[in-house]
Amino acid sequence: MPLHPAVAAVRRGVRGAISRLEPGDTVVVACSGGADSLALTSATVFEGHKLGLRVVGATVDHGLQPGSADQAARAIAQLAALGVDETATVRVEVVGGGHGPEAAARQARYDVLEQLRERLGAVLVLLGHTRDDQAETVLLGLTRGSGARSLAGMRRTFDHYARPLLDVTRDDTVTACQVEGLEIWDDPHNDDPAYTRVRVRRTVLPVLEEQLGPGVAATLARTADQLRDDVDALDDQARSAYDGLRATGDGADGSDGLPLGPVSELHRAVASRVLRLAALDAGATGSELFHVHVRALVDLAAGDLSGEVRLPGHVTAYRDRDHLHFRPTPVPR
Amino acid sequence: MPLHPAVAAVRRGVRGAISRLEPGDTVVVACSGGADSLALTSATVFEGHKLGLRVVGATVDHGLQPGSADQAARAIAQLAALGVDETATVRVEVVGGGHGPEAAARQARYDVLEQLRERLGAVLVLLGHTRDDQAETVLLGLTRGSGARSLAGMRRTFDHYARPLLDVTRDDTVTACQVEGLEIWDDPHNDDPAYTRVRVRRTVLPVLEEQLGPGVAATLARTADQLRDDVDALDDQARSAYDGLRATGDGADGSDGLPLGPVSELHRAVASRVLRLAALDAGATGSELFHVHVRALVDLAAGDLSGEVRLPGHVTAYRDRDHLHFRPTPVPR
Repeated sequence: MPLHPAVAAVRRGVRGAISRLEPGDTVVVACSGGADSLALTSATVFEGHKLGLRVVGATVDHGLQPGSADQAARAIAQLAALGVDETATVRVEVVGGGHGPEAAARQARYDVLEQLRERLGAVLVLLGHTRDDQAETVLLGLTRGSGARSLAGMRRTFDHYARPLLDVTRDDTVTACQVEGLEIWDDPHNDDPAYTRVRVRRTVLPVLEEQLGPGVAATLARTADQLRDDVDALDDQARSAYDGLRATGDGADGSDGLPLGPVSELHRAVASRVLRLAALDAGATGSELFHVHVRALVDLAAGDLSGEVRLPGHVTAYRDRDHLHFRPTPVPR
Repeated sequence: MPLHPAVAAVRRGVRGAISRLEPGDTVVVACSGGADSLALTSATVFEGHKLGLRVVGATVDHGLQPGSADQAARAIAQLAALGVDETATVRVEVVGGGHGPEAAARQARYDVLEQLRERLGAVLVLLGHTRDDQAETVLLGLTRGSGARSLAGMRRTFDHYARPLLDVTRDDTVTACQVEGLEIWDDPHNDDPAYTRVRVRRTVLPVLEEQLGPGVAATLARTADQLRDDVDALDDQARSAYDGLRATGDGADGSDGLPLGPVSELHRAVASRVLRLAALDAGATGSELFHVHVRALVDLAAGDLSGEVRLPGHVTAYRDRDHLHFRPTPVPR
């Protein structure tokens, strides 16, 4: 019987992600029991064992909803049945963070996965995000308005992590599970319209496809890839320029502040990133440092704005002749 | 009576665009009779005359619909009533182009406006695009998937043209006209759902605002500004790198082809743009050169793809050791 195209697509994605690993290497697959991660796990067992890898299936118990421990146990049983070499359950406690339950849960998940990876000595952790997740991420980023960085979606790889299914549709992962007889768990969060991502999935993307033509999800994912290249190039340039300014002993960390002469020679796209790095170094809060703040820093540096700029994280930027300085914002008593 | 905020917003935009002109300079306002361009014209007469400028109101008769000449005549009468120093009607003949009636009409409009500008010796032509137009442009670009370039929206200024209302909402231009007693012409094209832009305006943007929160149009416009900076920086870098490779006498126009060693040292975002420039120089058709083609050139240059890449415009790219060459694609007989 020929291989079903959906199964082939999932396996192709996984092959690309693990092809450079060595026999004996350990790879972790994060699996919730949903279609995407189940299909990913099945393909990783198949392709990983061909390469002599040790495949560990890991599930995260968020403790966010009643019965989450039961679901974690079900996922572990499925992982074992799929033939992984080892299973692991990691439990996270999400304490309310400043960025809503979604962001807090995501950060907690990465933290425990990273602890697990280190404990296992794994070279790679695979995550099951699909092309549809990527399209949703781009649309969500569009509404944040923080430029290319928020439109560039999720990285294909970062540190010890990879997302092999970013070219695979969610439908294909569902079909792959059905073909392989895997019982899919539907996360109730995926249907709760209180989550912006759920509204993007259920309402926004369908309207875009209907009004602008099919293929919008694919286009959004492709756009993300291109923007990612652009962002990486400009972020790298800004990092080099900023490090260069610091290395001269004349940087933002020294008493002399950031010299604005060299900054003004940079292209605006790079200069604004250099100023952002300087603000972060001075203690500004990255997650709250928005375009409006960076734009004010650009104007301050160019002399188009006088006075000072207050940044999130109780940091104030001010200009003294040719240098930009930062100091703590006075707290009113 | 205090100035109405909508009128103030329109005038503020115009002031920013014309502040550097000299007394006696001529500025042209393109006016269809719609709310945006009527409000723009009124503000330009007010602000321009304060600076001693000569203000010419121009209307374009597209000849696309029955009665277009009548509407052009109405617009001219309105322009005269608004106190412009001179009026001009320019007529365009749109012959079916390769990119649909919208793109053909747009190009024809710029061509005749540019002829008018040169004839009048005008230093600036003002266009009435609003923040809503910008948001629609970004969304339309999103569906094309050609990366930051198509998401970066419309430029605030280019050559002798400026768009003073990119921070002003369409609603504000309507209100400004009502406050000033100006009779607004509703272009029937603006309600024809056969146009993608009309569907974006009437359906897509309202759904985005409803599902993702108000302010999406403002966010899209802000995103465009940031992406424009990024695109300009990377395009400039690619142009310099490409010109450098050509100047060594070892460039794409010479018999030796484009040297791929130096290209491989560039960041991928710049390298892909250099390859795009080389393809355009070799005669590939810019409007049909999509991401898939450039991606194939990148793979060919990196050695990840062997053989040759056929490009629109009957150009074929191929690799010969360390150089990329182009030749005409053979036409099958």
